[in-house]
Amino acid sequence: MKKINFYAGPAILAQEVIEEASKSALSFGDMGLSILEISHRSKEFVSVLEEAEALVRELLNVSDEYGVLFLSGGASSQFYMTAMNLLNEGDKAGYLDTGAWSSKAIKEAKLFGEIEVVASSKDKNYNYIPTGYDIPSDYKYLHLTSNNTIFGTEIFNWPETDVPFVADMSSDIFSRPLDISKFSIIYAGAQKNLGPSGVTLVIVKKDILNKVEKALPTMLKYQTHIDKDSSFNTPPVYPIYVSMLTLRWIKKNGGVAAMEKKNIEKSDLLYNEIDRNSLFEGTAAKEDRSRMNVCFLLKDEALEAEFLKDCAAAGCVGVKGHRSVGGFRASIYNAMPKAGVQTLVDVMKKFEEKNT
Amino acid sequence: MKKINFYAGPAILAQEVIEEASKSALSFGDMGLSILEISHRSKEFVSVLEEAEALVRELLNVSDEYGVLFLSGGASSQFYMTAMNLLNEGDKAGYLDTGAWSSKAIKEAKLFGEIEVVASSKDKNYNYIPTGYDIPSDYKYLHLTSNNTIFGTEIFNWPETDVPFVADMSSDIFSRPLDISKFSIIYAGAQKNLGPSGVTLVIVKKDILNKVEKALPTMLKYQTHIDKDSSFNTPPVYPIYVSMLTLRWIKKNGGVAAMEKKNIEKSDLLYNEIDRNSLFEGTAAKEDRSRMNVCFLLKDEALEAEFLKDCAAAGCVGVKGHRSVGGFRASIYNAMPKAGVQTLVDVMKKFEEKNT
Ligand SMILES: Cc1ncc(COP(=O)(O)O)c(C=O)c1O
Ligand SMILES: Cc1ncc(COP(=O)(O)O)c(C=O)c1O
Ligand SMILES: [Mg+2]
Ligand SMILES: [Mg+2]
Ligand SMILES: [Mg+2]
Ligand SMILES: [Mg+2]
Repeated sequence: MKKINFYAGPAILAQEVIEEASKSALSFGDMGLSILEISHRSKEFVSVLEEAEALVRELLNVSDEYGVLFLSGGASSQFYMTAMNLLNEGDKAGYLDTGAWSSKAIKEAKLFGEIEVVASSKDKNYNYIPTGYDIPSDYKYLHLTSNNTIFGTEIFNWPETDVPFVADMSSDIFSRPLDISKFSIIYAGAQKNLGPSGVTLVIVKKDILNKVEKALPTMLKYQTHIDKDSSFNTPPVYPIYVSMLTLRWIKKNGGVAAMEKKNIEKSDLLYNEIDRNSLFEGTAAKEDRSRMNVCFLLKDEALEAEFLKDCAAAGCVGVKGHRSVGGFRASIYNAMPKAGVQTLVDVMKKFEEKNT
Repeated sequence: MKKINFYAGPAILAQEVIEEASKSALSFGDMGLSILEISHRSKEFVSVLEEAEALVRELLNVSDEYGVLFLSGGASSQFYMTAMNLLNEGDKAGYLDTGAWSSKAIKEAKLFGEIEVVASSKDKNYNYIPTGYDIPSDYKYLHLTSNNTIFGTEIFNWPETDVPFVADMSSDIFSRPLDISKFSIIYAGAQKNLGPSGVTLVIVKKDILNKVEKALPTMLKYQTHIDKDSSFNTPPVYPIYVSMLTLRWIKKNGGVAAMEKKNIEKSDLLYNEIDRNSLFEGTAAKEDRSRMNVCFLLKDEALEAEFLKDCAAAGCVGVKGHRSVGGFRASIYNAMPKAGVQTLVDVMKKFEEKNT
């Protein structure tokens, strides 16, 4: 039987996307070939790429001032590529430190410019989003991790500033509408809300590029991939294809505004139960609670193994928390149906009955 | 009906690999999930990665002195990563220029050291493999492209030297046995003999690493991926899985020695027809003819469109040559059955009957 997939990433995909993806792996359209073995220069794949780009533009309202790229290397490669492409030696950029991924972005960026941490929530194990910090206007950009996958916090109020944002949206892209004009770069590993692992979406403002003086390898320049429509070299064909199917699915289901509505409902359902249930408590500050990754604890740690057993018995997998937080994490990305969250809530309710 | 796939890459995969890959995209083992949505930290995927590595080691006889890595970014990322990881400023390396891919490797390496082109076959549109060139012993390595996908030449006699090789084997890895001890690094984009696009195999000698002085981004150090078993960040799960299935298939079919035997038979079959047939001629020097990419011309160019039509009618796709050479290119990687080559040969024979 199909499990209810609460993994943090690679993560749940819509079942109809999975079925179509499986079919195309056997035989793609009327090509008489598996999509796994077709040329990236074939008109059929070029049309997949074009549709994927067009859907990103449509769903997030991205103008031609931006390039929309499907790269490889994961979000982790963007930690250095962003800084490498935007900073000359001595240039300043600000970073908001809201978790493990922010910290890694900071570490890699330091190789390329003067990196200033504008604020950090490390003091409270990253359970909140700092506010009220200064953003000097000479920063080339302010780097934000919009959703902190590990710690279950999310940025709902973007800082007020004229400094453009560079944002790691790996775990909340396409979960809500965005004002793209605030961003110089948005990047996201596909494997949460967009597709399987193996491709990274990068949305990059064109006029910020080509200002660094150092010579970069061709593959590491965004301009290369803009000029060649993400096909300078062989792109990850299948991960891009499955991402395109997911983008179609998002559009068919009402776009990112509809996703946001559903995500609010689903996360409210789960957080309300966490708050109501006498055995559980949430870990993140209420106003910063992520709609994607819901982190919570059993007040009595000794009950953890039993709760995970009950989850498994109900078909819920991936609920164990990340070691940095402990307890539990239910990742409820776009593709998680409300019924899946309800099943988990029911397990929590029964668990309370059993244990009080 | 299933086409006979002569594309240069992404390229033909064994039909049983395709069928298993499609099944797992729907539902993987007894996990109750698609392999597209499982965690890269799950024991099931860790076991895929371990089996893939073990099969590479077994099939190519790779000792523990080497790391076996599954990276992303394509072979094109290895053009700079190899040089970046091995050369300090001022260090020398030699490059054999045997085609478009060698030339790109040279271009990227020049950012990191003193790159000397030991010989080039550019004078004859890369239709042969140069020999008899000098290899100064102070080179850190000699870079070779073992098979030139575009120009249809392949290195069968490795240069006699104590300088270790760095080799781009994107289009002939696993097509024949290798003496690994001659190599510091072997790299190969998966999408010819190994799997779908989206993963790159790198075999790297451990004791050559960590000798460069410059600070590198974490993701760009081979050591990072050795230390973390190719899972420092989220690896391309599905491309690795399909590659593992292909490695299993190679083993089941007798390993790389059996592949070589079959590849000799298949390429002999096709080259013999090219030579015999009065209408066609090969483009590569006979002694350097690739067993993977067979490039040939119609003496009368005016017949090209008709020949491609006949190929298509017989179910043969991907036969059109690369624009750098013109004419035709039949890529006959491991997964191409002899019967597929025979079909193409039959088309050529009938084409001769019709046109003489
Ligand atoms: C917010 C965030 N950023 C970056 C990463 C790293 O992504 P990747 O594994 O694709 O390099 C992750 C992975 O989970 C993440 O959640
Ligand atoms: C010999 C060789 N090297 C390198 C490449 C580039 O590989 P990728 O597209 O994976 O970057 C190719 C691609 O066809 C190739 O045939
Ligand atoms: Mg985090
Ligand atoms: Mg409670
Ligand atoms: Mg070539
Ligand atoms: Mg002839």
